[in-house]
Amino acid sequence: MRHLLDVCDLSVDELYSLIATAEDIAANRAKYAHILDGKKLATLFFEPSTRTRLSFEAAMLELGGQVIGFSEASSSSASKGECVSDTARVVANYADIIAMRHPIEGAALAAAEKSPIPIINAGDGGHCHPTQTLADLLTIHRELGRLDDLTIGLCGDLLYGRTVHSLINAMLRYKNIRFIFISPKSLRLPEYTLRALEEAGAQAVETASLEEYMPDLDVLYMTRIQRERFPSMEAYNAVKDSYRLTPDKLESAKATMRILHPLPRVNEIAKSVDDDPRAAYFRQTFNGKLMREALLLFLLSDAAKSAPSNLPKGEKCAEKCPNPKCITNNEYGFEMMCTSLEDGTKKCRYCETKL
Amino acid sequence: MRHLLDVCDLSVDELYSLIATAEDIAANRAKYAHILDGKKLATLFFEPSTRTRLSFEAAMLELGGQVIGFSEASSSSASKGECVSDTARVVANYADIIAMRHPIEGAALAAAEKSPIPIINAGDGGHCHPTQTLADLLTIHRELGRLDDLTIGLCGDLLYGRTVHSLINAMLRYKNIRFIFISPKSLRLPEYTLRALEEAGAQAVETASLEEYMPDLDVLYMTRIQRERFPSMEAYNAVKDSYRLTPDKLESAKATMRILHPLPRVNEIAKSVDDDPRAAYFRQTFNGKLMREALLLFLLSDAAKSAPSNLPKGEKCAEKCPNPKCITNNEYGFEMMCTSLEDGTKKCRYCETKL
Amino acid sequence: MRHLLDVCDLSVDELYSLIATAEDIAANRAKYAHILDGKKLATLFFEPSTRTRLSFEAAMLELGGQVIGFSEASSSSASKGECVSDTARVVANYADIIAMRHPIEGAALAAAEKSPIPIINAGDGGHCHPTQTLADLLTIHRELGRLDDLTIGLCGDLLYGRTVHSLINAMLRYKNIRFIFISPKSLRLPEYTLRALEEAGAQAVETASLEEYMPDLDVLYMTRIQRERFPSMEAYNAVKDSYRLTPDKLESAKATMRILHPLPRVNEIAKSVDDDPRAAYFRQTFNGKLMREALLLFLLSDAAKSAPSNLPKGEKCAEKCPNPKCITNNEYGFEMMCTSLEDGTKKCRYCETKL
Repeated sequence: MRHLLDVCDLSVDELYSLIATAEDIAANRAKYAHILDGKKLATLFFEPSTRTRLSFEAAMLELGGQVIGFSEASSSSASKGECVSDTARVVANYADIIAMRHPIEGAALAAAEKSPIPIINAGDGGHCHPTQTLADLLTIHRELGRLDDLTIGLCGDLLYGRTVHSLINAMLRYKNIRFIFISPKSLRLPEYTLRALEEAGAQAVETASLEEYMPDLDVLYMTRIQRERFPSMEAYNAVKDSYRLTPDKLESAKATMRILHPLPRVNEIAKSVDDDPRAAYFRQTFNGKLMREALLLFLLSDAAKSAPSNLPKGEKCAEKCPNPKCITNNEYGFEMMCTSLEDGTKKCRYCETKL
Repeated sequence: MRHLLDVCDLSVDELYSLIATAEDIAANRAKYAHILDGKKLATLFFEPSTRTRLSFEAAMLELGGQVIGFSEASSSSASKGECVSDTARVVANYADIIAMRHPIEGAALAAAEKSPIPIINAGDGGHCHPTQTLADLLTIHRELGRLDDLTIGLCGDLLYGRTVHSLINAMLRYKNIRFIFISPKSLRLPEYTLRALEEAGAQAVETASLEEYMPDLDVLYMTRIQRERFPSMEAYNAVKDSYRLTPDKLESAKATMRILHPLPRVNEIAKSVDDDPRAAYFRQTFNGKLMREALLLFLLSDAAKSAPSNLPKGEKCAEKCPNPKCITNNEYGFEMMCTSLEDGTKKCRYCETKL
Repeated sequence: MRHLLDVCDLSVDELYSLIATAEDIAANRAKYAHILDGKKLATLFFEPSTRTRLSFEAAMLELGGQVIGFSEASSSSASKGECVSDTARVVANYADIIAMRHPIEGAALAAAEKSPIPIINAGDGGHCHPTQTLADLLTIHRELGRLDDLTIGLCGDLLYGRTVHSLINAMLRYKNIRFIFISPKSLRLPEYTLRALEEAGAQAVETASLEEYMPDLDVLYMTRIQRERFPSMEAYNAVKDSYRLTPDKLESAKATMRILHPLPRVNEIAKSVDDDPRAAYFRQTFNGKLMREALLLFLLSDAAKSAPSNLPKGEKCAEKCPNPKCITNNEYGFEMMCTSLEDGTKKCRYCETKL
């Protein structure tokens, strides 16, 4: 049985196949209106996320399926100390597939280990959020017609931004990608991510200016810069306007360039940009629904259900994971496991923190 | 495209047409069971309101449609600072129509301005709650057979009561309506509403006695008197029993008189009144569902979707709205707009507070 | 009209009939997929309970019905002071049947008294939780093929455990049942329950050892021991491991013995027990859904709807109920009623506390 915990759980071919399905759903809505009749999706949201939850629910309903679930932990058995794998085993008696959002990193994997039905990771803390990346990839493909030969600017909080890291990992698998990393110094991409890029042979440039590479960009991926990330209000105020996208900053951009944003936005994109044809962020949410539909169809297909498990391997490990937000440090009686890396070091099997 | 933000967005003819549809739904349930198959309603409740939400959801399901949504703000992206118009634009990718409840006045209009799908205002703070008024109107029509030639008593908190103001505005459009306003002095109808009534040529009487005009009434609309509205517990205790409807106070009422209440009630109607055939408040909740069904059908009809926008007009305005609960004072980067009135003054376009 | 407030509201014959329906649903899923098309279940959960709520929702959806509702009181009108019987009367306009969870004892009966549609008690405080017991009974019947001639061990918190008391009451109606009560001294079965057992002619043994009677057991019903029940952390630590089920404690058990648990569990059953074929607790949750399906079919049948009311009788009563968590002490203007017992004493009609 297949799960989706990380976007790279899908091969490049499988991703193109999901994109093709998504396009077909968009073009032939009626053909899919009853394809999942009698199936149920459980949306287990241990922390609120309206957009992601509603997108999953709309996707399931548009395929003829039904939805059960909860939208925050206080409505769940977690408040009574139940572990996520028990929750998954119980809910497997009520539904055919689970979309799980959890504040703890590695929670989706912990659930998938014991689950008799497929688990979709709808966000596990700061770790992964693969269906957002699926939305991003379909948007790039629909807007520009390709996933190769692209110059992609990523702007904002590159240090903590989960969606940015996930998109970089996904794009590394395509040909001739050039990354432009645009951020204040204190929110630059983590060193290890930069090194991974170099090792993978990617082209990458760092800049503190949103305008410097604007004419080169095919895609500008905007993210929020949170005030809380700065040591002081002064430090925040000194940079915030530089990373705010306004119509004047777009003057030098190509007509075919596309602006993406995982949303919600606060003020990092001015509302006056919304009507620019290059603004693709509202279409991006539509694409997110299409990709979730394609994903539900894939994971509930006979082929995926009879496929061998794609859970990451691991071995028993005496060390504790150093990440306090890791599932191994947050549930009763959790047995720590780790994965050996090529350079001889190890990472936690669940949250992928280096040991 | 048509929205429903205020009950008077509907013409008198359209209202009679909704009533006719509601009656037809009640009489021919099976005919409507699949009429909205494949359509989705999003119930975006930024503050809890069980009754209204469940009524909308039941209405949509009984027409064959489906429902997604949230029941309080903590489950929504608003907690991350997203503006309601962004929420509406995103949700428009997941649903065909939105019912929105929001604690901030003017929120539904702010959402409707940018929304590519119809918005129903399911309550925006103390401003409007038009679908409650639709329930009231259908109830009067079903119980008494007419909306003209009525003596209507309105009892309770007439100063703050949103449902009361909305019902008065709606009834002003019918012929030969006489209003009896029954309240303690401190909760009398606002002066400007009384003046608007006189200008509109309505007959209106004020009284502090629930029994004085009882024999005249065709409709008695009860509302709750909240303890919090009084300066002291003594002031509250001095009047509360006078505005509590009990069987003895009903002795002088007509047999055809009908008691309405927007519910929930606490103790302002004694339970011993519930079995009186004049008690129409539980039937009123049933009627609310019927009118919401009629409304969903209307707003999703091709005619309404291709109709010109019925949003209130406005012009740019340098002043700030004085209402701290107005949407213009509660969202980032909101551009204030106002509407000029006949007497040369202006009101806020969003919450209708006089500038 | 029939309601389900207590498991013994169902006769022994009716219970066997529900079990037969549940088995038929499991065997012939397609036959039931549209049997409740057009019907709506309202899940009114005044306190959160994911498992129970999702089980009801899955049950209704699998029969072709639809679901509306809320998952915690803050989303409900109760926060505005509405009484449960008003809530039920209102919701009866939106749905065909109600499953109600409420922290106050007797709430489901208070709702049922005025409700024009059937009420299922999905848990009313510490009082009753009959659909859990239905899950237990189906599990015993499916796993062991009978409900008579059983030795049943009940382990854990026998003093406060609602599911334990309910299961005992239900099993008392079957032939040749022997109870083994396994608990620390401070959490022994209440004296009056023991006496009721003796009067009913049941065989019952008390022990503080989980292992003493292990070889005799046909069923081992585990429950959680909450730290909060003990006067000190030391008192808790002194006993907790004795009542934790581990593979070594199971060595002397029969191969046909079955382990049940109402779930969620924390650590009272080691995870290493999960893969033992005797561990039936995850199957038990599946059985819970089947029994809820059978129950929905029964209560929505014409026979049950036209049957005389099965609400417990009562008479007016001058005394107040001594239970502060009783509905009679928690809602405005509640008229106390009591029921006379054979021994001349009285109990509260709502929460069954002795007066």
